[in-house]
Amino acid sequence: MAGLAGALILGKRKNTQLIPNNTVLTILGAGLLWFGWFGFNAGSEVAADGIASSAWLVTNTATAMASIAWMVTEWLHIGKPTNLGMASGAIAGLVAITPASGYVDVWGAIVIGILAGVVPVFAVSWLKPKLGYDDALDAFGVHAVAGFLGAILTGVFANPAINPAGKGLLYGNPHQVIIQFIAACSTMAYSFIMSLIIFKVVDMVIGIRVKPEEEVEGLDASAHGESAYNF
Amino acid sequence: MAGLAGALILGKRKNTQLIPNNTVLTILGAGLLWFGWFGFNAGSEVAADGIASSAWLVTNTATAMASIAWMVTEWLHIGKPTNLGMASGAIAGLVAITPASGYVDVWGAIVIGILAGVVPVFAVSWLKPKLGYDDALDAFGVHAVAGFLGAILTGVFANPAINPAGKGLLYGNPHQVIIQFIAACSTMAYSFIMSLIIFKVVDMVIGIRVKPEEEVEGLDASAHGESAYNF
Amino acid sequence: MAGLAGALILGKRKNTQLIPNNTVLTILGAGLLWFGWFGFNAGSEVAADGIASSAWLVTNTATAMASIAWMVTEWLHIGKPTNLGMASGAIAGLVAITPASGYVDVWGAIVIGILAGVVPVFAVSWLKPKLGYDDALDAFGVHAVAGFLGAILTGVFANPAINPAGKGLLYGNPHQVIIQFIAACSTMAYSFIMSLIIFKVVDMVIGIRVKPEEEVEGLDASAHGESAYNF
Repeated sequence: MAGLAGALILGKRKNTQLIPNNTVLTILGAGLLWFGWFGFNAGSEVAADGIASSAWLVTNTATAMASIAWMVTEWLHIGKPTNLGMASGAIAGLVAITPASGYVDVWGAIVIGILAGVVPVFAVSWLKPKLGYDDALDAFGVHAVAGFLGAILTGVFANPAINPAGKGLLYGNPHQVIIQFIAACSTMAYSFIMSLIIFKVVDMVIGIRVKPEEEVEGLDASAHGESAYNF
Repeated sequence: MAGLAGALILGKRKNTQLIPNNTVLTILGAGLLWFGWFGFNAGSEVAADGIASSAWLVTNTATAMASIAWMVTEWLHIGKPTNLGMASGAIAGLVAITPASGYVDVWGAIVIGILAGVVPVFAVSWLKPKLGYDDALDAFGVHAVAGFLGAILTGVFANPAINPAGKGLLYGNPHQVIIQFIAACSTMAYSFIMSLIIFKVVDMVIGIRVKPEEEVEGLDASAHGESAYNF
Repeated sequence: MAGLAGALILGKRKNTQLIPNNTVLTILGAGLLWFGWFGFNAGSEVAADGIASSAWLVTNTATAMASIAWMVTEWLHIGKPTNLGMASGAIAGLVAITPASGYVDVWGAIVIGILAGVVPVFAVSWLKPKLGYDDALDAFGVHAVAGFLGAILTGVFANPAINPAGKGLLYGNPHQVIIQFIAACSTMAYSFIMSLIIFKVVDMVIGIRVKPEEEVEGLDASAHGESAYNF
């Protein structure tokens, strides 16, 4: 939501047709992120116990399912399965399973992963052009949409056999879905409104957008004085 | 063996002279694979005990030896030590030590590593042109040859002081080599024959080869609609 | 110090204006090194205990501080914060915290990190041109300078509450700084003198510098017969 607020205050790039510079490194980065996320989700248990193992397992399961689901969705929807789609699906899966890991079982992870791989495709390919914001990294379409999904679905799939601290709709506690919905909506509203205010104030005081000629030159050269590649 | 079966059914590429696109990423990939393989070999013990430590140690030792041995072999044989050779040697070492890790000691790992770094060089540089199959990734020359070597040598070097469950030729049990030989040959024969059948059936039903114009255009563009680099 | 000895015996490159070939991979390499260093510093405790946790924590803290401090220093000093500067700062931080990790607390790590991010900038940008050696990787300016700093500062910040085996200046033991100073100076002198002798002998017997035409052609082609990229 902070990313969406930033994209709205910043406005569109001069060139919104830029494509990823290096999709080989996109896949590599997604792979390293996937690996590092095990430390995030399983490590958050701060113990080497059964809940940490379960968190690790469902993190991998949901991410793999989301990566495949995104690929299949764009295959059917756009016509070709892409590298970039599989990487985007993996990120969406990681985001969606994060609130659920340590609470849901593998079946829950499979459903969460599939939904995380399908729904954001439409946020990115349909909602983004419709609303007209320019979100270069799809922070909203992938992270916010998949994160919201994961938060709600934790309330559906939380299995007390995995973790007695969580009991979802499927295990007789529909109230958990309402709690998750209120928590997710209020967090997103807080993040969006506060970020709008912060970006607006920073924009007025310092400015958050580079000069047009710096944008055309590219920030590597104008802000950092270096180029990515010197082949 | 499945890779060899696939290469035979698929036939040669139109252009068999293609060279690696990015040897920097080849080395990076080999390094990440090396690191991940610790989880595979040591993690297969499913316990943090002495056998897991030993498996980790010999995995690293054999891989390092194979990488150096491949480099030295091509230095003597072809004239120059290459990046790609060191990466290929590392993969061969990882494959060869996998059946042995958790059973052999460091001396066994050193011998397995050296052989895994020397023998596949000749499979790739002599056997492949002689037999005429087009194995773009050298799945047969590196994986099958090094894997077979490792399976047999496990029967030679398995040291009961490392793991009481394994006792090899050097420790008075020559029968283990025969068991390893039968197991390796039957697995390879099964994999080769079944893969031939599967590839043949899939080829007749769906087809396993892209159209010639798609191959010339490259699969990045024709199958995925994206290019690796957009510099 | 061995690197400086090598740079002095080898002499300057024909082209000392070469810039990093791929700063994207520089950042990736620095990140992988940062991650691997946790195994080096925390793993050196050879136990999963409180000292290992502390070593891990201060390794990350000092590295992060050094990376930011280098960036800020070059921002103020040169005018632009660079990718390469952040990576150099991370390396300097890793080097500086290594002797201290397992002994110092987080406040010590913050000070060590900041100094490791500031002092080597001047070694690289002021001392190197002044002394005139050609150290392509800044092994002296980053590693030796940050390593010396870290060794001395361990004697200042070693906190017996973290590890009873170490008590520094701030905890009433000024003598530790003298011990660290003598140890660091004698190690550096030993490394420098022995390396000078070894490089000189190898230079006379085999030669340590490629032929001028090989240097112009580049070692990828002349020594290895391959090129990094074949786009």
